[in-house]
Amino acid sequence: MKGQQKQEDRYEIRFSGSGGQGLITAAVVFAEAVGVYDGKYVCQTQSYGPEARGGKSKAEVVISSKPIDYPKALELDLLLAMNQAACDAYFYDLKQNGLLVVDSGLVEQHPTSRIIAIPFTDIAKDEIGRKLVANMVALGAVGLLSGQVDLDNLEKALLARVPKGTEEMNSRALQRGIEEARKINLDDLPRAVMSDDYDEV
Amino acid sequence: MKGQQKQEDRYEIRFSGSGGQGLITAAVVFAEAVGVYDGKYVCQTQSYGPEARGGKSKAEVVISSKPIDYPKALELDLLLAMNQAACDAYFYDLKQNGLLVVDSGLVEQHPTSRIIAIPFTDIAKDEIGRKLVANMVALGAVGLLSGQVDLDNLEKALLARVPKGTEEMNSRALQRGIEEARKINLDDLPRAVMSDDYDEV
Repeated sequence: MKGQQKQEDRYEIRFSGSGGQGLITAAVVFAEAVGVYDGKYVCQTQSYGPEARGGKSKAEVVISSKPIDYPKALELDLLLAMNQAACDAYFYDLKQNGLLVVDSGLVEQHPTSRIIAIPFTDIAKDEIGRKLVANMVALGAVGLLSGQVDLDNLEKALLARVPKGTEEMNSRALQRGIEEARKINLDDLPRAVMSDDYDEV
Repeated sequence: MKGQQKQEDRYEIRFSGSGGQGLITAAVVFAEAVGVYDGKYVCQTQSYGPEARGGKSKAEVVISSKPIDYPKALELDLLLAMNQAACDAYFYDLKQNGLLVVDSGLVEQHPTSRIIAIPFTDIAKDEIGRKLVANMVALGAVGLLSGQVDLDNLEKALLARVPKGTEEMNSRALQRGIEEARKINLDDLPRAVMSDDYDEV
């Protein structure tokens, strides 16, 4: 169990995929839920460099109960990858036993068996009727799986930010993502054996 | 002139005002224009702490031609303040001879005579017909005054991000902001005399 202890009180999430998938919006909503409604410290960042033209998009959220010195993610607790390129590029930034959450329709090659694959885009398209809200389905799942946000506050933050007239659709998308994530038992995921575990024997 | 030299190649902007004024959206559009279209390094950040409930909202953009180590603003080159509370709170984070840009209808008490006051919200309401696009009027002015972004790219980034059907309105708002800012002659603004200037005598 020692390996599961947090070294510090800091939780890092990266939302990644293609430009146009609404990942910045998802990250902003998450950060507002945690920062404005839950009242924790949170930094939300996007960084662009020459690689920004490559079609990968990322947005980060760093959460802490204390003021945050360094707002960029250093070692991810949770990586959401909404396409294969982002999964391949960012998987190695995950902490050991961090959570890899992918869109199962868009990420076919899995870099690890420790993966949570949910068809976010298919759910958005087939059940909500708008592919565009796949980001909100994913946001719901990330909200639940991270355990870092009050889910009612997540919905409040979402309703405050989405365009007028789209509230109900976005809200349904969020709830579907939460529902899908509830089916996952995190204890069933394979875990890397960590050196700390041996120390305890 | 020595006082005007950049110590390092870094330009920091803070968009501030109330929640609901769309300042994060303005900052995201600015960052995407600079990062994705202009191809510079840029970080865009929002930080929330217990003070987030106070009704102040801020979003930052840090631009550099080199990778950015520390993404939060340290000393602002430009502060946009869309209400009095934000102006009062953040004015002291401005660099000496940095640019203070305010909504003249919402910020009545000026902390300095070195100020650029433009009625962003009145322009949005009276000329574009939607108070909501005051953020885009301000974005246009900040784009021009900062000299940090290609204005065509700023419009491209805006069109890629705003909700479908609102493109023309947002684009008009941006152009009106650019137009207003063109009327300002930065050389006419009062300047603080800096100790470096004395050294040169």
